[in-house]
Amino acid sequence: MSTKISKVDVRLFTVPLPEVMSDAKHGDHYHFELVTTTITLEDGSEGTGYTYTGGKGGYAIKAMIEHDFANVLISKDGTDIDGIYDFLEWHVHYVGRGGIASFAISTVDIALWDIKCKKAGLPLWKMAGGVNNTCKAYCGGIDLMFPIEKLLKNMEGYLAKGFKAVKIKIGRDNLQEDLDRIKAVREFIGPDVTFMVDANYSMTVEKAIKAIEGFKKYDITWFEEPIIPDNYKGFGEIVDKTGFPLAMGENLHTIHEFEYAFDQAKLSFIQPDASNCGGITGWLAAARLADKHGVPACSHGMQELHVSLVSAQPNSGWLEVHSFPIDEYTTRPLVVENHRAVAPDYPGIGVIFDWEKLAPFEAK
Amino acid sequence: MSTKISKVDVRLFTVPLPEVMSDAKHGDHYHFELVTTTITLEDGSEGTGYTYTGGKGGYAIKAMIEHDFANVLISKDGTDIDGIYDFLEWHVHYVGRGGIASFAISTVDIALWDIKCKKAGLPLWKMAGGVNNTCKAYCGGIDLMFPIEKLLKNMEGYLAKGFKAVKIKIGRDNLQEDLDRIKAVREFIGPDVTFMVDANYSMTVEKAIKAIEGFKKYDITWFEEPIIPDNYKGFGEIVDKTGFPLAMGENLHTIHEFEYAFDQAKLSFIQPDASNCGGITGWLAAARLADKHGVPACSHGMQELHVSLVSAQPNSGWLEVHSFPIDEYTTRPLVVENHRAVAPDYPGIGVIFDWEKLAPFEAK
Ligand SMILES: [Mg+2]
Ligand SMILES: [Mg+2]
Repeated sequence: MSTKISKVDVRLFTVPLPEVMSDAKHGDHYHFELVTTTITLEDGSEGTGYTYTGGKGGYAIKAMIEHDFANVLISKDGTDIDGIYDFLEWHVHYVGRGGIASFAISTVDIALWDIKCKKAGLPLWKMAGGVNNTCKAYCGGIDLMFPIEKLLKNMEGYLAKGFKAVKIKIGRDNLQEDLDRIKAVREFIGPDVTFMVDANYSMTVEKAIKAIEGFKKYDITWFEEPIIPDNYKGFGEIVDKTGFPLAMGENLHTIHEFEYAFDQAKLSFIQPDASNCGGITGWLAAARLADKHGVPACSHGMQELHVSLVSAQPNSGWLEVHSFPIDEYTTRPLVVENHRAVAPDYPGIGVIFDWEKLAPFEAK
Repeated sequence: MSTKISKVDVRLFTVPLPEVMSDAKHGDHYHFELVTTTITLEDGSEGTGYTYTGGKGGYAIKAMIEHDFANVLISKDGTDIDGIYDFLEWHVHYVGRGGIASFAISTVDIALWDIKCKKAGLPLWKMAGGVNNTCKAYCGGIDLMFPIEKLLKNMEGYLAKGFKAVKIKIGRDNLQEDLDRIKAVREFIGPDVTFMVDANYSMTVEKAIKAIEGFKKYDITWFEEPIIPDNYKGFGEIVDKTGFPLAMGENLHTIHEFEYAFDQAKLSFIQPDASNCGGITGWLAAARLADKHGVPACSHGMQELHVSLVSAQPNSGWLEVHSFPIDEYTTRPLVVENHRAVAPDYPGIGVIFDWEKLAPFEAK
């Protein structure tokens, strides 16, 4: 039986969040969008890929897959992942090169990797590098507007779940409030817990430098997205002036954007997200580029998938455990042992959706 | 009566092309997509903006406007163009920063400019700079695969329509074929007609340099997109090695991408397209940045709109007369006098669609 693609099925779900989540630049989140693409080959193999958003863009992603991808994918060889990746990039190049197209391509690529792993009878961590099946992990909150008491309650919850690393949002208008929150968290978690901060690019270069002066005594492992992702040279300037470790990646959608970052931004950590940088193929390309530059490959969002990717790399970094609870809608929520995240060990990408649980949230 | 937005109406049309058009990187075009957004204010004012694609992405653009923009635009002040522009950029930032979002935002922005001009009782060229109401114009074909005879027939048609400047596609696998076509065209049009070439980023830096060595004797005004738009430094390298004037812009979708281009690409001409760089607001920002760098502001596509924008600038460059015949579906196809394009002189953006003529091509 042939490995030609016979069916491409796209679904969009609008999943409510347990509580309103806020950050410095994307405002309030009430739900997240999940777009799934299930691909079937003529030989009956089937794989599911997916992406997510903070509540906007899901319909556009679905429309692109349905109207621009599905027809042209039919009859292509579903085992030619690199060929299909390259084809899709050029197919929507004029309206692509990042943005919605990167999200849409990601779903297709992840579905094809799911098929590839199932055919090989191997879990993703073995197919995507194979160095290890566990990795460092930290919990990141979308908690900018939480009062300090609630923020510390969150930290307590993270530690109780077995994590020994946490991240909080900063970027309030008043810098002192950020510093107060950082101080309170460091005092609460003690000196042995790893601690990062994330400003969601709400600062200027000047404010970021001032913020670092204020919080460097709290042993912060990285400062994530101090300024807009587009200002690569501004990142470099902050590093030149402070020597402080910076991180970004969740807003880099093409390999070229990662190239600019490594060329100009002087990052200490990179955080690609397979759901928006071209799937597993795009994530691995970014991770390999990072390795060349001696930078650890971390991740953003989708811990249920990234645990396999981050674990498998020679330059394995930190897995972000994001507060969008996608993995509550899968058959295997993230497993944590000895403070490390553990990759699933069965054939495929290791993410199996609970379609019945998702069904009430399907958008038509 | 209030100037609050009361209605946002989006339509998608799939318009067949008179013949199959090909270029080096986007393959064959059979139709183009036109997405129109009509905005109504509570006081009854109405404006229409639009964008287009080469046949892919239209459904995604429409979906974003319908699902992510329409609801949040209702009740916003429709005369606050800059405020709405900024709001939309951040509203879809996570899935945006270029790609589909730039196309979608463009339609809204152009609609609001249409209203603004109508309210002022002035034509766009007066509202968008006012320096002049005519500009230089050239005809550009999507003609890479045309045999030479047909290519020359095209040139004949351009000259017969009153133009004294032409552009052809290059980028065939065999460089000699490009050079043969360039030679034939220059001999046909004579020494007094302005002549540009466009490779649609199909070359490497090395091949582009070789191509320039081969065609520089034919008095070519610019070499457009020799290499991928993402490789800004590669553009700079070509200029350093050859001193030849380069042009690009149709694939730059955010002000940051224009900043990179002016910073690194050593361009002699910039060609923003208001349909994909944030509408008239985005186009003017790029044109102003160009002026700071002493670069003429040209355009890509949509001559029926860009004629007003290019004419109005102090650094007015060349208007591209594109071969997607959008303006056949308006009440005023482009006017050419004394080899120059003439901006419409009635209130509004000057583009009024013939909805009855478009109706058969509406996609549902
Ligand atoms: Mg972040
Ligand atoms: Mg071009």
